[in-house]
Amino acid sequence: MQAFETYLLKIAGISIDEVMLLTSELKRLSFEKGELLLKKGAICRHSFFVEKGLLRSYMLDESGKEHVIQFAPENWFIVDRSSVYFNDASESYIEAIEDTEVVLIGEDFICKANETSPAFRRFNDKLLHNHIRHMQKRINLLLGATAEVRYLRFIEMYPDLLLRVPQWMIASYLGITPESLSRVRKELAHNNFKTN
Amino acid sequence: MQAFETYLLKIAGISIDEVMLLTSELKRLSFEKGELLLKKGAICRHSFFVEKGLLRSYMLDESGKEHVIQFAPENWFIVDRSSVYFNDASESYIEAIEDTEVVLIGEDFICKANETSPAFRRFNDKLLHNHIRHMQKRINLLLGATAEVRYLRFIEMYPDLLLRVPQWMIASYLGITPESLSRVRKELAHNNFKTN
Repeated sequence: MQAFETYLLKIAGISIDEVMLLTSELKRLSFEKGELLLKKGAICRHSFFVEKGLLRSYMLDESGKEHVIQFAPENWFIVDRSSVYFNDASESYIEAIEDTEVVLIGEDFICKANETSPAFRRFNDKLLHNHIRHMQKRINLLLGATAEVRYLRFIEMYPDLLLRVPQWMIASYLGITPESLSRVRKELAHNNFKTN
Repeated sequence: MQAFETYLLKIAGISIDEVMLLTSELKRLSFEKGELLLKKGAICRHSFFVEKGLLRSYMLDESGKEHVIQFAPENWFIVDRSSVYFNDASESYIEAIEDTEVVLIGEDFICKANETSPAFRRFNDKLLHNHIRHMQKRINLLLGATAEVRYLRFIEMYPDLLLRVPQWMIASYLGITPESLSRVRKELAHNNFKTN
């Protein structure tokens, strides 16, 4: 059984029979580090579930500067949901930070799964609301939190990413400069030293 | 027929018979300017649909500063969705900026409507995705847009709010200082004058 099937069984609470039925036709793809899974302007056709590796989504602002929207390590979904749902041109890019293996989750899969499995429907609804919860927290942090608080929340959300993601990408995700991030890390290290 | 029923009929595309069936038990409330509909720490039990007036949601940061999350004039919904769905303590406040009349939309209404009306189910799903689309655009603007671009997007989204909302609240929504907002408005007025 592969990572996505295990995820549906253990995290989504879907029975083994339903998992087997639903996942028999799923497609998997591999991407090399640096490859793009989605480009700005294209229509996003799938959610990507990461079985191995690490993806990120990012946008470019008017001056061409990159801003990281989300990271997706193992067992995370990543998608431009507006583009999939509304057929909007995507505003973001999705890129492989490491060599990555994904499952492609299309709208056809979601529809079929929603129809055949009440457990999947509840899970998918929860996934949508979880996405909203994450985005709301992100907006609150961007509007009102110091660099230090943003960094601490990042560590909570992505505990295993600190060593896998370059510092400038973390700073970009936090909406702060690499210099601010460096200062925050030094202050936290200093405070830890004092209290231990 | 009141504003919410008209909305379901015309915007959500739900048949008149279904609208009558679904809305017969809905509750309405009135709030005076300045009243709170939701406080931080409480569990949000309803979405509010604004039939008349104007609401806003906001949060307080660690230093006690207010940050406006959303405005909701007539025909908008406003809710702390994470709180309703996950029973989380709300992180935000909802306040009446004007005397306001709302319809209370509880989870019991949503469940019943989802079960009895496929049209409502499609509409509710679209509403969720629209919420996600708005939040994603908000994050993109907060991460990467100039004060001027943020202000122009605000005017697009809330064309009738410029005269109903104090400037400091607009600045707070945009994540900029009132001084920056004032500068942006002057520059835009100056450029309009030059090109007309």
